[in-house]
Amino acid sequence: MHRGPIIATVTAPLLAGEYNAYVTRRTLLASALAPLAARIGAQTSPARIQRWDLFEIALDGPRDGNPFLDVPFSAEFRQQHRTIAVDGFYDGEGRYKVRFSPDAEGEWSYVTRSPHRELEGKTGSFVCTPAAGKNHGPVAVRGSWDFAYANGAPYLPFGTTCYAWTHQPDPLQDQTVATLRDAPFNKMRMCIFPKWYEYNRDEPRLFPFPRTAGQNDYTRFVPEFFHNLERRILQLQALGIEADLILFHPYDHWGYALMPPEVDDRYLRYVVARLAAFRNVWWSVANEWDLVKGKKPADWDRYFRILQERDPYARLRSIHHSVVMYDHGKPWVTHLSVQGDDFAKTGEWRSAFRKPVIFDECKYEGNIPKRWGDISAQELTRRFWLGTAAGAYVGHGETYLDAHDILWWSKGGVLHGESPRRIAFLRTILEAAPQEGLAPLNPAYYPCVAKAGEYYLFYLDYHQPALADFTLPAEARFEADIIDPWEMKITRAESTYSGKFQLRMPGKPMQAVRFRKV
Amino acid sequence: MHRGPIIATVTAPLLAGEYNAYVTRRTLLASALAPLAARIGAQTSPARIQRWDLFEIALDGPRDGNPFLDVPFSAEFRQQHRTIAVDGFYDGEGRYKVRFSPDAEGEWSYVTRSPHRELEGKTGSFVCTPAAGKNHGPVAVRGSWDFAYANGAPYLPFGTTCYAWTHQPDPLQDQTVATLRDAPFNKMRMCIFPKWYEYNRDEPRLFPFPRTAGQNDYTRFVPEFFHNLERRILQLQALGIEADLILFHPYDHWGYALMPPEVDDRYLRYVVARLAAFRNVWWSVANEWDLVKGKKPADWDRYFRILQERDPYARLRSIHHSVVMYDHGKPWVTHLSVQGDDFAKTGEWRSAFRKPVIFDECKYEGNIPKRWGDISAQELTRRFWLGTAAGAYVGHGETYLDAHDILWWSKGGVLHGESPRRIAFLRTILEAAPQEGLAPLNPAYYPCVAKAGEYYLFYLDYHQPALADFTLPAEARFEADIIDPWEMKITRAESTYSGKFQLRMPGKPMQAVRFRKV
Repeated sequence: MHRGPIIATVTAPLLAGEYNAYVTRRTLLASALAPLAARIGAQTSPARIQRWDLFEIALDGPRDGNPFLDVPFSAEFRQQHRTIAVDGFYDGEGRYKVRFSPDAEGEWSYVTRSPHRELEGKTGSFVCTPAAGKNHGPVAVRGSWDFAYANGAPYLPFGTTCYAWTHQPDPLQDQTVATLRDAPFNKMRMCIFPKWYEYNRDEPRLFPFPRTAGQNDYTRFVPEFFHNLERRILQLQALGIEADLILFHPYDHWGYALMPPEVDDRYLRYVVARLAAFRNVWWSVANEWDLVKGKKPADWDRYFRILQERDPYARLRSIHHSVVMYDHGKPWVTHLSVQGDDFAKTGEWRSAFRKPVIFDECKYEGNIPKRWGDISAQELTRRFWLGTAAGAYVGHGETYLDAHDILWWSKGGVLHGESPRRIAFLRTILEAAPQEGLAPLNPAYYPCVAKAGEYYLFYLDYHQPALADFTLPAEARFEADIIDPWEMKITRAESTYSGKFQLRMPGKPMQAVRFRKV
Repeated sequence: MHRGPIIATVTAPLLAGEYNAYVTRRTLLASALAPLAARIGAQTSPARIQRWDLFEIALDGPRDGNPFLDVPFSAEFRQQHRTIAVDGFYDGEGRYKVRFSPDAEGEWSYVTRSPHRELEGKTGSFVCTPAAGKNHGPVAVRGSWDFAYANGAPYLPFGTTCYAWTHQPDPLQDQTVATLRDAPFNKMRMCIFPKWYEYNRDEPRLFPFPRTAGQNDYTRFVPEFFHNLERRILQLQALGIEADLILFHPYDHWGYALMPPEVDDRYLRYVVARLAAFRNVWWSVANEWDLVKGKKPADWDRYFRILQERDPYARLRSIHHSVVMYDHGKPWVTHLSVQGDDFAKTGEWRSAFRKPVIFDECKYEGNIPKRWGDISAQELTRRFWLGTAAGAYVGHGETYLDAHDILWWSKGGVLHGESPRRIAFLRTILEAAPQEGLAPLNPAYYPCVAKAGEYYLFYLDYHQPALADFTLPAEARFEADIIDPWEMKITRAESTYSGKFQLRMPGKPMQAVRFRKV
């Protein structure tokens, strides 16, 4: 345990594995020596962190009173002409932290800010080195409808959902991570707050606020709760999985859905201060916002604005509905996070909002006695293809009955279903597609996502033509693959095609056809 | 060939088989003897026809000029206080006919009306005997949402579609009839006018109007054309199949979709005079009315009103759309004839229009390169169940590629598909259901058509719960059958059920569940 102020340098990774987050741990002798320390840091062996990794300053400061409320703490990070102000947070045990994820290579310096003398004016610097390994940077919207990593690599969301996996016993959390290692998913929808719902009636070991006798102390946070969350976010990062963090949700019995506005806002600022620097974090303002009672539309707008104001990285922001859709035209929404299976709406939404569309919940593969949790693997596979061909992205979830009520959709654990393999197959197909500018072909005889003149991916759903009509540009030739999404087979047609033509098909339903320019 | 006036009595059936139509053939010596003849008819051996069968008066009359236009001819049929005026028609070769289908047992008399002396004032009588055999009478709407035969037997439409079957070579027409003998269908959508469309580029042997050098003589009809049509309608009747006669349609290259209004109206009056007395006739004012160019909404209203005014039996009247729905709230529409697969709309339409809903075209089982003609047998079976569980009726069609372009949907012939057996299976299930008052259960967790407290038929579609929740009335017990619509298997659950309960299911998609009060 460190006492007294400590400032930045790089230490060992928090976790073994491929993630790239680092935490600073260099101890200063005394706060009075801070300017010297900063000079030392700069002159001798400045910390080196990869671009988009996490740099952390940790200082010891006041422990009396309520540091969560009483001690403002932040830092300014500078590179040449740029200054980025970043909120710090109290991490308990007298420890104050600021986290920063640099987006540009080269030398950065910082200075801390606080009305408290021991936290004020601490300076230092670090060198931001090129990203390496699997560090592609954070994901953002590219153009209007695509996602890409900051290094330019495309990002095609293939999400899954384990709402409450970080609130389960440690071995189960570990099992979830192990499962994800072999699964095709690169995004995880997960709640910060624990969840109280069918198959989810367990009290978690840790809560975000101190809780005694059923009462929350909303004036403080529980750092240990967040340490676990952060560890899991980093594990996801190491697996190339974006953490789509759900900030509010209705499935609550502890009071988190009913907090006073000032607590909501403080919670958001605290979460942003802690988590925004993790490059795989996305903000999902709510799961099923319209089912959260007692909040007005203006509250949701305010949450978004707090994220906009406090998150220096502008991480992706969305809000998921149940029945009533939030106005995704509002400027703080970066992409649509949609419930339902009305994939045919995608084109309209793309045009109206000019944002990517993710069907994050189109029902789950499973067999529980719930209409939203009992669709077949065939149907979920079909929905992935329907959504893809409509120009949207589709998310997975799984809800098979389990003797111990461990359902993937909520608690994680292991996967039982037949759709993930098929989702993996679809992912390989899309990863081999043009990296930008796929758009629904409209009107298409069968749903088709295409990059005009180059690439066409049709999904024929329940249609089973023996001969299928297609019209492609006449000025190029295309090779054709007939794809069986369930059997995961790709059959190259013998000829190449151009203009208006008929393609001989296997005459069975649920097939796809891909055309690629020769 | 009869010369001179002839009047009514019963002769042998037009056709061998089980139909019950009869034509009168008693010859009168001279028109001057008509009163005597009528007396003779009444006193000696009055014609006897079954209730709802067809009684025909045939008189010889003027052949000069244009009898189709120049010679009004009608009759009044009387029973006790009732007088029913019925239009006659010219059947060529100097023959004038009036057809009548009595709806009540007992003695009926008639008198003919015409400005022409040889056709005026001919009288006669017949005895209407009880219906027998498979003669259940015409179908009408019972209550708001059911159909029933006039004798009270329920009628559950299980239609198919052979738009142009009566315009094919005779052997093919015969083959269609033979196929229907073993098929599960009890309604046939068929056009009066020939059809010009893909897979249908044949010139028929017979046309409704005389046609020379590509020109129609709209002032005359071709009786032989109608003789064939009538023969086929009677063959359908013998098989228990309603003839849903399409009066106008857009797939034309002869001019029938573009006739002047007065020709349209004369055509309708002629068709009604000829065909309304066939008890299995329904009027479908149009197939895809909204694709017929050059007609205004008021034209379609007028056609309906002509049917209302001229058809003494008020045969069922509908109009089928492609994209734009006709206002089915208009009083002359007896039921909805719908295109599409938006079965979830059924409840809304039932409430709004308080009329039965038939999805006459929800795409066809087949493999042609057309999105409307290439759905799988599984999908069409699914649609029959979805529609049924939504409280609608669903129609069949089939479009498999054929070396001779004989596709069932248009030309008839033989069936190739896998859905008819499953449709037959569904039909047996519905025929064993309560005969009146099935309605969609709303809201139901899974689509369900029910007679509250008695009977519930759920369709689970792509859902595959291992345990399914149901809530039935607590004051009764129900036996449960799990139905596999594709495998055509019914598995009785071991227990009986009441109130709120869970039923163990096979955990596979596309299953149905039936509950019947013990």
